[in-house]
Amino acid sequence: MTACPAATGPASVPCPTGPAPALPPGFTASAASAAIKKPGRADMALLRCPAGATLAAVYTTNQLCAAPVQLSRRHLRESRGHCGALLVNSGCANAATGDRGMANAIELADAVARACDIATVAVQENSTGVIGVQLPMDRMLAQVAPLAAAAEHGSIEEFARAIMTTDTYPKWASRTVEHCGRRCTVVGCCKGAGMIHPNMATMIGVLLTDAALDPSELDGHLRAGVERSFHRISIDGDTSTNDSVFALASGAAGGGFPADALRCAFTEVARDLALMVVRDGEGYERGIHVRVTGAPTDADALTVAKTVASSLLVRCAVTGGDPNWGRILAAAGRAGVRLDLDDLSLAVGGVRLFERGGPADTPLPDREAAFRQPMVEVHLDLGRGPGSEEFISCGLTKGYVELNADYTT
Amino acid sequence: MTACPAATGPASVPCPTGPAPALPPGFTASAASAAIKKPGRADMALLRCPAGATLAAVYTTNQLCAAPVQLSRRHLRESRGHCGALLVNSGCANAATGDRGMANAIELADAVARACDIATVAVQENSTGVIGVQLPMDRMLAQVAPLAAAAEHGSIEEFARAIMTTDTYPKWASRTVEHCGRRCTVVGCCKGAGMIHPNMATMIGVLLTDAALDPSELDGHLRAGVERSFHRISIDGDTSTNDSVFALASGAAGGGFPADALRCAFTEVARDLALMVVRDGEGYERGIHVRVTGAPTDADALTVAKTVASSLLVRCAVTGGDPNWGRILAAAGRAGVRLDLDDLSLAVGGVRLFERGGPADTPLPDREAAFRQPMVEVHLDLGRGPGSEEFISCGLTKGYVELNADYTT
Repeated sequence: MTACPAATGPASVPCPTGPAPALPPGFTASAASAAIKKPGRADMALLRCPAGATLAAVYTTNQLCAAPVQLSRRHLRESRGHCGALLVNSGCANAATGDRGMANAIELADAVARACDIATVAVQENSTGVIGVQLPMDRMLAQVAPLAAAAEHGSIEEFARAIMTTDTYPKWASRTVEHCGRRCTVVGCCKGAGMIHPNMATMIGVLLTDAALDPSELDGHLRAGVERSFHRISIDGDTSTNDSVFALASGAAGGGFPADALRCAFTEVARDLALMVVRDGEGYERGIHVRVTGAPTDADALTVAKTVASSLLVRCAVTGGDPNWGRILAAAGRAGVRLDLDDLSLAVGGVRLFERGGPADTPLPDREAAFRQPMVEVHLDLGRGPGSEEFISCGLTKGYVELNADYTT
Repeated sequence: MTACPAATGPASVPCPTGPAPALPPGFTASAASAAIKKPGRADMALLRCPAGATLAAVYTTNQLCAAPVQLSRRHLRESRGHCGALLVNSGCANAATGDRGMANAIELADAVARACDIATVAVQENSTGVIGVQLPMDRMLAQVAPLAAAAEHGSIEEFARAIMTTDTYPKWASRTVEHCGRRCTVVGCCKGAGMIHPNMATMIGVLLTDAALDPSELDGHLRAGVERSFHRISIDGDTSTNDSVFALASGAAGGGFPADALRCAFTEVARDLALMVVRDGEGYERGIHVRVTGAPTDADALTVAKTVASSLLVRCAVTGGDPNWGRILAAAGRAGVRLDLDDLSLAVGGVRLFERGGPADTPLPDREAAFRQPMVEVHLDLGRGPGSEEFISCGLTKGYVELNADYTT
């Protein structure tokens, strides 16, 4: 399987998103308000899938994952990768809520199963919002039947808006795959990782296709896409208790689409969404895209790229548009990968800053200009092997700290 | 060897420091200005040790460590743990400076050796300041002989002030060990890890004793002390290219002091200094001290404590005095250690927040008060074993971002 070329280039940021794409044939969606956190705002969303729809999912690796994540993981296994409905709510994460939280997650799944006339194991769930608070079950249960009934009239826009927390705009993307006169689409939406008290918000992604794919094919496409998108971004280094990305295939467009093209479409949609998440990070001012080449292995390259992109000092320099490249080298040097300055070269935005052992004599205005782009493009060549990787983050800003600290209860 | 009780209690912060202690007998110090970054400010400091003085040191693990660190590491090995003089400068890190940087470090060491009439391998060096800039060698070499000549009149205060970069006050601490009517002292000074453009500043610590200790004994005391102090703090997670802690023993007070008492004194002095570094972190408003108990192993406890104390979201909550304890659990859950909410309890400042599976029903004013102490004391019991550890950091503030971002070149 060849890599998707569009998924390794510069990190252009599609933001804000354009008009919402249509849901792929077979899926329907709806949204409603259960006044979970605020009255009047849509905070529950239901996606319905046709009989036989397949499911793959990547759930948070957080050891203290929320009840709906635990339940969905079990349902994925027990349904052998099939799904009839996905219920998502914002405003409450149902995490660290004990036995009662799990009982609530199960009760909601049972209610969705009854309303949609599907097996309970065919229900997937996710919740995003405050940790340690119980769901308002009466108000939520009252919305399940209306959600199921309204689904055929809904759009991905309604769904994407209902799952937002601190996102400033809804996020979606789509690609079309054509093959021998037939076509299928991959449509995705997500909510970002912005976090604001009392929320530990959550990254939730949903990738939908009308291609017919068995669960293991779908899982392969999802994991390939996530690997080059959501697994290559960071806002604040925290992994939430609820983070999940779901992939669903309705089968309405039939099978037989080339696997390479489908995987590329999944990857591009996931990458667009991931970049929107970075772009909509709290207090966002400027992005940083770190590309590392010449590492002993790809894994080493990723370690270095992630360490540089996540360094607070580098991220502060990015915010300030400050050509303080010593911080990039210092972060690379503590990544735990064997390096030697004599082999190493650094360029930012194509401007040479350090070349195999010594600083480059690039004029200061050029260095400053390189650090003042909307996306600061860092290229670090370690000169030690064939490994390469990338990682994307954003400058650390006063706005981020303000949003996450100065909220008083 | 028993643990030092004072080194595991609450993280009280001795700040600002009181009057400077006297140098332990045998040592002399001096400071001078070479106008490395700014004219008029003392930016070179020399510490002289008597013949036979022993040395131990812990150098940065950063792969791209600075020339003086590489040279000092070699001298420590070649001198078999002996030292006649320690030269430190601020204003320039001599890091990422290539062959010329190493030649400069060697030339300075040779000059110090000549001026002090010692072997070159008996010279230790460190530099702190900008990365990627060469030392102003003419001005620095001109100060070496005057520094050596002036050393007998100097104090630890002069030394501590000359090595400061963005520190707002000089840092020192001392302890006395008495044994059978004899006494020795452990006196330390350090500069903090505050970082501001164009500096990648550096943590430099110096621990001095007049006890007679062979290099391996001294190394044991130093490592024990560093392990419970500098290795348990973080300001921004970055490890500089220059971080070093030196221990020197003059022998003037003779040998035979109990190893336990000496190790305890080293640990307490190092811990005082480390807490001062945190307290003087850029933009400091409030500290966080995370204690983890009930872990499978001490190493697991440290992993969890460090992850919680370093979490940007937890650190923002600390700044805001925001009792957002879900962030503490979420950070613990992603630390990579196997956890179960049903076993886990969390208290902050003695206030119960989560108890074995469910949120505690502590009133909000009590929770708020716990998060608004000068040092937020987090106690996380994992309920899974005998391992315990601690880690200390501080809230992430707008002041930190401002200092590290909004400096324009």
